[in-house]
Amino acid sequence: MSARGRLTMLVVFFLPLLHCVLLEGAEGAPWFWRWPPIGGGGGEDPYCLSWRVMVEANNAKGWRRVPAPCIGYVRGYMAWGQYYRDVGSVADQVAAYAAQIVPTADGLDAWVFDVDDTCLSNQPYYQAKQFGAYDPVAFKMWASRGVCPGIPAMQWLFQTLRGRGFRVFLVTGRDEETLASSTVANLAAAGFFGYDRLIMRSASYRGQSSVAFKSAVRRQLVAEGYRLRGNMGDQWSDLQGECVGDRVFKVPNPMYFVP
Amino acid sequence: MSARGRLTMLVVFFLPLLHCVLLEGAEGAPWFWRWPPIGGGGGEDPYCLSWRVMVEANNAKGWRRVPAPCIGYVRGYMAWGQYYRDVGSVADQVAAYAAQIVPTADGLDAWVFDVDDTCLSNQPYYQAKQFGAYDPVAFKMWASRGVCPGIPAMQWLFQTLRGRGFRVFLVTGRDEETLASSTVANLAAAGFFGYDRLIMRSASYRGQSSVAFKSAVRRQLVAEGYRLRGNMGDQWSDLQGECVGDRVFKVPNPMYFVP
Repeated sequence: MSARGRLTMLVVFFLPLLHCVLLEGAEGAPWFWRWPPIGGGGGEDPYCLSWRVMVEANNAKGWRRVPAPCIGYVRGYMAWGQYYRDVGSVADQVAAYAAQIVPTADGLDAWVFDVDDTCLSNQPYYQAKQFGAYDPVAFKMWASRGVCPGIPAMQWLFQTLRGRGFRVFLVTGRDEETLASSTVANLAAAGFFGYDRLIMRSASYRGQSSVAFKSAVRRQLVAEGYRLRGNMGDQWSDLQGECVGDRVFKVPNPMYFVP
Repeated sequence: MSARGRLTMLVVFFLPLLHCVLLEGAEGAPWFWRWPPIGGGGGEDPYCLSWRVMVEANNAKGWRRVPAPCIGYVRGYMAWGQYYRDVGSVADQVAAYAAQIVPTADGLDAWVFDVDDTCLSNQPYYQAKQFGAYDPVAFKMWASRGVCPGIPAMQWLFQTLRGRGFRVFLVTGRDEETLASSTVANLAAAGFFGYDRLIMRSASYRGQSSVAFKSAVRRQLVAEGYRLRGNMGDQWSDLQGECVGDRVFKVPNPMYFVP
């Protein structure tokens, strides 16, 4: 092939690819092609942004892992600021709603918080696993270390609600028998103290769906006389079922899906 | 410009774009729903992106108008492509879910669609109003003109579901007495024909909330024996209440909130 032919090949086939990569930040693109991250990792990939919004709106269900083209996107979203901004916006929204409620003197106005990725972040674990599919053994090892960072906006919200006189119940699908002590220690280290009860999955609820287990827990709380004013979770399965509370708030989480 | 100059322009500017478009098409929906492939008003403002995701996840409720700092953002989101990409993603998701259902021969497998900003777009109206607060008189004038553009991905989804043997019911809070003829004509002009019934708000439901009116309509359909396999709407009030259907899908809409 002539030099001119090679040049034409280059222009026609190579440059368009480079063009796409630079504009779109295709799968596996080095981070510096995405730099600066416009919106802190939130909006530079239109396909993955659509997918993330579908997850938050509960349109995308039953997915087992982050779509391959969105692994880099989710890493950027979680690490570069937009995730923390989104959690902060939700916390502001909750605080504004809670400010309209005056807890009564009987001390029965209550709030329900999920634990994983509502109070404590598993982002370091999922990032190390390349946002791969759920691995119960590896996740249990991670959780048993008790080193999940607290999510600052939720820690602020938790203490704000406590300070306003609400009782707070932490309800988690974590296994009580094996993870109780590490979870209690992790919560305390992350600034979550003063909650009323930490309710974990006991042996009798093993194998039950998250919706069934959490509905049973909330039903019990309501039977005890508590008024569930709000319910916060990073999974829609935290927020659906029975006795969901007066208002539910979805905390963002594009890392995994719990049915 | 010389012929060679024009050729160079073509190669350097046009072919790369074409290339991107062709690559994008691999994701499922036709490429033109995903146009333009770059950003498109989705993520360039982190605050407004947070707000929009809160709207879609039903965390932000009861707002009367787009927050002032986000008016330009919403205009860009609606007009520059990300909205159409998001709607296309939802339509893909619905079609994938519907593909798992085999409608039975009794002809009672049904789908519910909302009309405004689910089938027909009010974007031209709200853009002209600077995404301001709801103005019932002006909105009725706009709707009575019958010129709302159809939303292409929803028109495709509507015909796909019809073609698969589902009945489709259109349920809208629009006033039956004053807007029936313009709505019927608008739907036909926008490619929505072959639906089973268009159910509008009759005089007896005037003043009732959207949730109450739409729940009553769906309860009636279920009483008639229909199995509501899916329910699509741009407002959470379309998707909550009674007989919501086996699965609900939230169509994006950051322009207004219907309680």
